[in-house]
Amino acid sequence: MPHWSPEGRIRVSLLGATGLVGQEIARRLLDHPWFELGAIAASAGSTGLRYGEAARGGADGLPSALADRRLVRCDPDEAWAPIVLSALDTAAAREIEPQFAEAGALVISNASAFRMEPDVPLIVPEVNPEDLSLLATQRATHGWSGGIVCNPNCVAAIVGLALAPLHQRWGLRALSVTTLQSASGAGYPGVSALDLLGNVVPHIEGEEEKITAELEKLLRLPDQTRIGAQVHRVPVPSGHMASVILECAEKIRLEEAEECLRNWTGAPEARGLPALPQHPIFVSCASDRPQPRLDLWAGDGMTVTVGRLRRDPVLGLRFVVLGHNLVRGAAGAAVANAELVVRGQGPGVRERLSLTPAH
Amino acid sequence: MPHWSPEGRIRVSLLGATGLVGQEIARRLLDHPWFELGAIAASAGSTGLRYGEAARGGADGLPSALADRRLVRCDPDEAWAPIVLSALDTAAAREIEPQFAEAGALVISNASAFRMEPDVPLIVPEVNPEDLSLLATQRATHGWSGGIVCNPNCVAAIVGLALAPLHQRWGLRALSVTTLQSASGAGYPGVSALDLLGNVVPHIEGEEEKITAELEKLLRLPDQTRIGAQVHRVPVPSGHMASVILECAEKIRLEEAEECLRNWTGAPEARGLPALPQHPIFVSCASDRPQPRLDLWAGDGMTVTVGRLRRDPVLGLRFVVLGHNLVRGAAGAAVANAELVVRGQGPGVRERLSLTPAH
Amino acid sequence: MPHWSPEGRIRVSLLGATGLVGQEIARRLLDHPWFELGAIAASAGSTGLRYGEAARGGADGLPSALADRRLVRCDPDEAWAPIVLSALDTAAAREIEPQFAEAGALVISNASAFRMEPDVPLIVPEVNPEDLSLLATQRATHGWSGGIVCNPNCVAAIVGLALAPLHQRWGLRALSVTTLQSASGAGYPGVSALDLLGNVVPHIEGEEEKITAELEKLLRLPDQTRIGAQVHRVPVPSGHMASVILECAEKIRLEEAEECLRNWTGAPEARGLPALPQHPIFVSCASDRPQPRLDLWAGDGMTVTVGRLRRDPVLGLRFVVLGHNLVRGAAGAAVANAELVVRGQGPGVRERLSLTPAH
Amino acid sequence: MPHWSPEGRIRVSLLGATGLVGQEIARRLLDHPWFELGAIAASAGSTGLRYGEAARGGADGLPSALADRRLVRCDPDEAWAPIVLSALDTAAAREIEPQFAEAGALVISNASAFRMEPDVPLIVPEVNPEDLSLLATQRATHGWSGGIVCNPNCVAAIVGLALAPLHQRWGLRALSVTTLQSASGAGYPGVSALDLLGNVVPHIEGEEEKITAELEKLLRLPDQTRIGAQVHRVPVPSGHMASVILECAEKIRLEEAEECLRNWTGAPEARGLPALPQHPIFVSCASDRPQPRLDLWAGDGMTVTVGRLRRDPVLGLRFVVLGHNLVRGAAGAAVANAELVVRGQGPGVRERLSLTPAH
Repeated sequence: MPHWSPEGRIRVSLLGATGLVGQEIARRLLDHPWFELGAIAASAGSTGLRYGEAARGGADGLPSALADRRLVRCDPDEAWAPIVLSALDTAAAREIEPQFAEAGALVISNASAFRMEPDVPLIVPEVNPEDLSLLATQRATHGWSGGIVCNPNCVAAIVGLALAPLHQRWGLRALSVTTLQSASGAGYPGVSALDLLGNVVPHIEGEEEKITAELEKLLRLPDQTRIGAQVHRVPVPSGHMASVILECAEKIRLEEAEECLRNWTGAPEARGLPALPQHPIFVSCASDRPQPRLDLWAGDGMTVTVGRLRRDPVLGLRFVVLGHNLVRGAAGAAVANAELVVRGQGPGVRERLSLTPAH
Repeated sequence: MPHWSPEGRIRVSLLGATGLVGQEIARRLLDHPWFELGAIAASAGSTGLRYGEAARGGADGLPSALADRRLVRCDPDEAWAPIVLSALDTAAAREIEPQFAEAGALVISNASAFRMEPDVPLIVPEVNPEDLSLLATQRATHGWSGGIVCNPNCVAAIVGLALAPLHQRWGLRALSVTTLQSASGAGYPGVSALDLLGNVVPHIEGEEEKITAELEKLLRLPDQTRIGAQVHRVPVPSGHMASVILECAEKIRLEEAEECLRNWTGAPEARGLPALPQHPIFVSCASDRPQPRLDLWAGDGMTVTVGRLRRDPVLGLRFVVLGHNLVRGAAGAAVANAELVVRGQGPGVRERLSLTPAH
Repeated sequence: MPHWSPEGRIRVSLLGATGLVGQEIARRLLDHPWFELGAIAASAGSTGLRYGEAARGGADGLPSALADRRLVRCDPDEAWAPIVLSALDTAAAREIEPQFAEAGALVISNASAFRMEPDVPLIVPEVNPEDLSLLATQRATHGWSGGIVCNPNCVAAIVGLALAPLHQRWGLRALSVTTLQSASGAGYPGVSALDLLGNVVPHIEGEEEKITAELEKLLRLPDQTRIGAQVHRVPVPSGHMASVILECAEKIRLEEAEECLRNWTGAPEARGLPALPQHPIFVSCASDRPQPRLDLWAGDGMTVTVGRLRRDPVLGLRFVVLGHNLVRGAAGAAVANAELVVRGQGPGVRERLSLTPAH
Repeated sequence: MPHWSPEGRIRVSLLGATGLVGQEIARRLLDHPWFELGAIAASAGSTGLRYGEAARGGADGLPSALADRRLVRCDPDEAWAPIVLSALDTAAAREIEPQFAEAGALVISNASAFRMEPDVPLIVPEVNPEDLSLLATQRATHGWSGGIVCNPNCVAAIVGLALAPLHQRWGLRALSVTTLQSASGAGYPGVSALDLLGNVVPHIEGEEEKITAELEKLLRLPDQTRIGAQVHRVPVPSGHMASVILECAEKIRLEEAEECLRNWTGAPEARGLPALPQHPIFVSCASDRPQPRLDLWAGDGMTVTVGRLRRDPVLGLRFVVLGHNLVRGAAGAAVANAELVVRGQGPGVRERLSLTPAH
């Protein structure tokens, strides 16, 4: 299989295609200007099935160009491509992603398996594209010609994006995050209807630890930064909301904070990537926004909406942020990272990628 | 109309009977050991109707002993009693409650109209029964023989109860409250279904100001205490949840905090009141509690459930608390205050009440 | 104001713009190939406001090209155009729509006010476009140069569409409709959240009568046809579902029914209208479809989805149908009727419309 | 273990205790006047655990008198009692229930495994207690000293109860049932939250077949009776609603139907059983009832509520009925059947049961 589509697009593979995140990645790769979706891979139980048949929780939502494709194994022999997007679950990711990295593929992973490894870039393109440089260490350590690049946990991605401009300018010192997270964050079938019909659950296993640790890594917070988190699962299909209070090294004027968020366009490396909106943060002045129903699909799901921005008597500043957990928090984040990686290879990337398959 | 029922119970009136809180007060007065429900009063539009016909949002849920009663006007001429429970809305309360106070009735009000008046007791019986002494000032100022006693906003009542033992022992210095509030908090019809089906709204008009101001008054917090609040309306029928982080003057050990909450029985004046559970705070050790579905009716709706109690890197301590907004946060709170007031009158209260009607 | 936009599109007005249906009509007129949205009119309370400010229940969802427009009065002096789309409520429609008809406008009405008048066409373009001929009678009777054309109640529109091909071929004799209707059918604020969080209400005022009467008129059912309906409001934001059993004059083979529905393209007059999909009915073979979550937006909200099609021991045939109540059942239906009316004017319509304003 | 509790109550065992139905049976056996809960048995994975630890979906809701009990195996060696209540799932019931029947226990089963066996009584006490006589055949056929008695599927139980008085008096000829069923009918975790948040699913595997077949058996409908059913899962935690249209051999006057339902007290054998209300059917005259939120717990969950009773142009009569699926449709039904069986044994039942254990 050539690594270029006839139209000159880079062929990418998808691992873990049947879950909600895998399906959303697949949708975002249809008609992608740079990428062509090659192998669509899933766990052993789904191999050989039609994608539309095996996809979980809304399969028929797949366009027929996807639904009729056959699923292959998550194995470099069947699914290698120079760029591999992975929506595998943690356990599978831990085993399979290194096989692809060793086989020379750049694995863009949504899994939590390797996010906190010191030599694995944990990237939001607008925030810390320079951390891609960790790939060199990673390759040297493991003797890989490929590598693994992760996007953060859905809450860390959304909250991290909203915090980045403030932290870059004023220096975060303390941060408390209280989340209201949607059902789709747990995948499909995920949460029982009985736990969410008219109910709230103040716990998601391992989530608070991921949020705090990944925000520290993503934002390169100093060790002495204090971070706390309390998560809640709420009866919302999609869209994670977080109420955030924060303290910075310098005192922030409210108007400056608002202007800073509103005008932020992120790191130069990220500007103009196909998956990214020009302004990744929308600041709403309405007193009752953001809301999942109204703001979920801002910027095709890649814009986060900040509202209720105001001074806070306890830490200094506060706001509420909403983002699409399956898009900005997962599938769209992975696609954007794939774009960033490709652009980062510099001129001639297509030729080099196509000339040097490790496989 | 005598002020004593044939069984020797004190006759009480109910103002604003048709809303959700009014109905819940009425239910709690059926078979009450000390009180007998006399006049049931409502706004002009409902006067003369059967209670079951005029009650909003679940009228038929009223037991027939209530449903068949006729509604009278909210006027001392029709609805006077030595103790008057008021579930009036703010505007009506502002006008009507003083009329009853002037006519010698003790008005136990759930409305926000007078809560922040310096001479109006804002009472949770277990927390600050001694503030009833403000009644003397109030009577002197207004020349009333009766008076007005308020219970706090639903969130302030629930969070204030959970904070009281900690504050009394270690001294609150800073407090940040993030709420997930149910639909019934807005009454009936209240919130539009379109705003809550699969959605969250990060705003309730005036609520954050009430929470912070009333907690300060209720807990007698020093001026320099920092308090912040962010509210959310969530798709839950009943039950308000709050995620709380707090800093105290002294460092608290987690086990001590847990023990302090678990064993707290509140002020001596409140012990044994019919409306109150022995332990007003239940501390759950389960990792995923409290939940509205499972914990709403603890202690017949008068026990608040604390869970996720743990150290917080930002302020020091954190927990999640859930209480029944219509009961501990409104109707049950008013009934308990009525009991407290009656007990506070000392021996012979029944005789004195019945001998000295101002009316 | 000329009746043609600079691009040669027909100028249309919108009455009752602030409700959910009015907003959806406005959205559908942006970039419409034939129409240009002229006056946007609303009730007296909203006149002069920005549309985005006055729109209810999700105002900020309006694109800025709409949100920044100013609202005018629902009066021919301010809002006349050759074609007027009305999303007025019943009472307002009864008063205002005839004023526009008298002033020479063709009023395309979503209101129920005149639907059952014998000389008012009640139209679904694919089903009974020939009923537009009633306009001649209507004009003669009232001495109007304009006229009123209605689209049916949301359920009648959706169920009527699914029944039309079967009725046209096999002749309906009996019909029983049980609906599961969404919250948005009641507008905004509409239904109380307390009535729909975890609850179902088996009643919508006047709805069952509308469904049966309008289906009879729309499908020209013989008098002896037996029709029954039972409605339920369910906790779904948008999308009306109906379970239908039916008896026909002739026995239907299941495969024939399926093929008949699947291949139906509707009346020739409707084919190719911009608002209409080529196949207005999609037949799903999945055992668990249709579902609001998955099928609501089929054909941009104008395709209804039929599933669970099978033989029924009681009446002979049964199916479940889902359609978008705000689109196929209201806004999209009105826009399609406007298109049908314009096309029905024959060649030269633009010139004639623009040359003969009654106003 | 003796078969009598110290208080002279009959010891019963519970099989399949950890699911929602098992837990509800256990709760209903606490303080039961006739029964004492002996062994509490569950599948191998839960054996030896505390009941409160193993119970699914709301475990902590169990009173501590239950939560602290230890679970034993579903095996006659560990869990025999003269009366055994089974909430096993179908596959387990098929294997395990006959073992207990063979060992001389009367198994009161909520499972569907044996409901349609010709020699297995499928009982609603008020409807067909005489079918208990099938036990004699069953014992003879299998050589059992015990036996198996089933309660129907939740919808069949609720709808069958509402139909019984009408059928007994006027003779059902045709019946069409459209259901709106709650999440708890699928157990815990059961349905995915993503399938029910703002959504409806028009399918439950095998449910329509169970409803029609079991109604035929329960009501002893003549072969030529036509029955159809369409089920929907709706976003309601508990409470199954059904819209029913029916045709009878004789024409029914509406007032007679209403009176017939309202006054019906069921078969004499069932009257006064502790689990049963005096009037199992409540007829509401309100236009918008029944509703799960308001009517779920009528008669402690054992009364079904009928509303919207009216003439139907298609089949003649129609109504909407609501019942508690976990109580009248499952746990309460099983307990009532156990009571019926015990009473059916005649005077001296306690002595005989305790003297003749097969075990």
